[in-house]
Amino acid sequence: MEILARAKELEERGRDIVHMEIGEPDFLTPEPMRRASIAALEKGELFYTPALELPALRLTISDFYHRRYGVEVPPSRIVVTTGSSGALMLACATLVEAGDEVILADPGYPANRQFVRAMGGVPRAVPVDESSAYQLAPAHLESSWGERTAAALVASPSNPTGTLVSTEHLAAMAEIARARGGTLIVDEIYHGLVYEGDAMTVLALADDVFVINSFSKYFSMTGWRLGWMVAPESYVAGIDRLSQNLYLAAPTTAQYAGLAALTPETLRILDARAKEFKARRDYLLPELRRLGFEIPVTPQGAFYIYAGCARLTRDSFSFARDLLEQAGVAITPGNDFGDYRAEQYVRFAYTNSIDRLKEGVRRIAHFLAQ
Amino acid sequence: MEILARAKELEERGRDIVHMEIGEPDFLTPEPMRRASIAALEKGELFYTPALELPALRLTISDFYHRRYGVEVPPSRIVVTTGSSGALMLACATLVEAGDEVILADPGYPANRQFVRAMGGVPRAVPVDESSAYQLAPAHLESSWGERTAAALVASPSNPTGTLVSTEHLAAMAEIARARGGTLIVDEIYHGLVYEGDAMTVLALADDVFVINSFSKYFSMTGWRLGWMVAPESYVAGIDRLSQNLYLAAPTTAQYAGLAALTPETLRILDARAKEFKARRDYLLPELRRLGFEIPVTPQGAFYIYAGCARLTRDSFSFARDLLEQAGVAITPGNDFGDYRAEQYVRFAYTNSIDRLKEGVRRIAHFLAQ
Repeated sequence: MEILARAKELEERGRDIVHMEIGEPDFLTPEPMRRASIAALEKGELFYTPALELPALRLTISDFYHRRYGVEVPPSRIVVTTGSSGALMLACATLVEAGDEVILADPGYPANRQFVRAMGGVPRAVPVDESSAYQLAPAHLESSWGERTAAALVASPSNPTGTLVSTEHLAAMAEIARARGGTLIVDEIYHGLVYEGDAMTVLALADDVFVINSFSKYFSMTGWRLGWMVAPESYVAGIDRLSQNLYLAAPTTAQYAGLAALTPETLRILDARAKEFKARRDYLLPELRRLGFEIPVTPQGAFYIYAGCARLTRDSFSFARDLLEQAGVAITPGNDFGDYRAEQYVRFAYTNSIDRLKEGVRRIAHFLAQ
Repeated sequence: MEILARAKELEERGRDIVHMEIGEPDFLTPEPMRRASIAALEKGELFYTPALELPALRLTISDFYHRRYGVEVPPSRIVVTTGSSGALMLACATLVEAGDEVILADPGYPANRQFVRAMGGVPRAVPVDESSAYQLAPAHLESSWGERTAAALVASPSNPTGTLVSTEHLAAMAEIARARGGTLIVDEIYHGLVYEGDAMTVLALADDVFVINSFSKYFSMTGWRLGWMVAPESYVAGIDRLSQNLYLAAPTTAQYAGLAALTPETLRILDARAKEFKARRDYLLPELRRLGFEIPVTPQGAFYIYAGCARLTRDSFSFARDLLEQAGVAITPGNDFGDYRAEQYVRFAYTNSIDRLKEGVRRIAHFLAQ
């Protein structure tokens, strides 16, 4: 965050910065979704919706699971939320009592720990490395699950690593959580942005898991604050009451935009974008390796590359700071995502055009050659 | 909530229901605000904003305090939030540690208790009655403040009572909280909808309070989910970090709509609406008294009348249920707002046209005459 703020500051002073630190798509919300929202605005669809949200939107999401994975997820299990942030909050509020532990990966999305803490819970960060594709694996859950563990949270693809958890591992982790009377929470917010490999939703494997998802990434709707959760049927009434109390409802105009998420026109736009993200990754990954970054596991999704920089620096934070100040390239140091070997990693986000990524690579090469 | 759901059910079956239970304005978001949002949508202003939000919106809110109250509130103390729900969550997360108590009025807005509980805190509901205009008074804080009390929360005007806390009482309660090392939180979300009497913001009286506000009520922006908080300067950096973690940002399109909140065109529309709400109150209040409801304290703001029904029924819940089923009028029983004498009160919301309120009164008279 410090790097992000400093990058903006430099930019405001007229400096040209290559942004490889930004965690949101550089693409606008697709035109059909914007049009749907404008139509709702003109029609005056601006009041509170029910806390579980527009029934038609829950149907749309159910349809999404059917089309993408061939999995039947009834609308009655779907809770539309104020971004995936709202889904994470409701999941933690539902599953975590004060003093309970939640197992999560280090490195991982930093806010996850804050949701657990907000509920009086204890985030139990488990160090992960290349041997498990920087992901939690069944063995981690077995060795870390304790008396007070209520849940384990995995993200596939992961921010910051872009790596996946295999279907086999997801099933095994759901089973471990079940056997110990806990719950597996799976963050699937980067689904749709997976360029190869095995990205099945955990909902194909188990009914007793919580899934967090979002319209922000694949659907390019970051500023709208629209996400969803799929929960076991028996939890939904309680989550509805809680959501009503803590959020009232998700933003109405965003929900109307979401109704246009699965039109053929929207899907065509989104597929072209996913291809563009893949092309960027395919460009950037070998270039970074060539520059001396160590990336032993190929990131298969999201728009991140978590790159080892131990051959280039002893301290990724000062490396990122110097790269920004001296070369005008903004990247994110590992300490934004946890503690484990954080000084040996930086995150590159390819939320920028290939031309700009090329300029970034050129500047980094020059910086490293000094 | 049960009554609301049943009212919808009956309506879907073709029954004509007079709605006097709905807690949001029946007016559309003013045209200039909708236009501002459409312009942002067309321009593509759809990405995340900083967690403290659009600097221009914080300036707009600062300007609002200057115009309405002649009070200087610097933008640096203003945190834009995802509805007042977001503001309440951030205030509780900031001020309440696990085990801490928060003093609040019974009756009151029911979600307040849930925000305190979500943080592991203990809501300490203090029964209030007509002797203090159904509001917390300094004497309540003095007698209820304990070892573990972190804060007291007052709402002026209040949901469900529509009554105000006097400037004198606000100042005294801020002083009591200060002297005991705690904080006064003031919910001012119904400001702007005050028809007589003394509705000064507590920010004119003290700098060390938290104020919760919203674009939902006076600005008719319920479904947009936009609110704000004013906090003491020293808390803002911490709230910014927390907001970034728990919310990322408030909805971007809503913020652009908010930028048009203080145009002369918008203000003209809003003033006409406030006059219309006053006219409805002035109609409904004597009618309800004539029907036998006891309303010893004239509600001065919001769009609610909290009416004693002890002369008409022993149980406000079955009264409301029967009124809905037999007469097709939806009102809210007291138990939605707390426990204290809840069976002796119902809430009427005048979020409906005078013609419909007249029809409601006619039906209630008929129901009572049976």
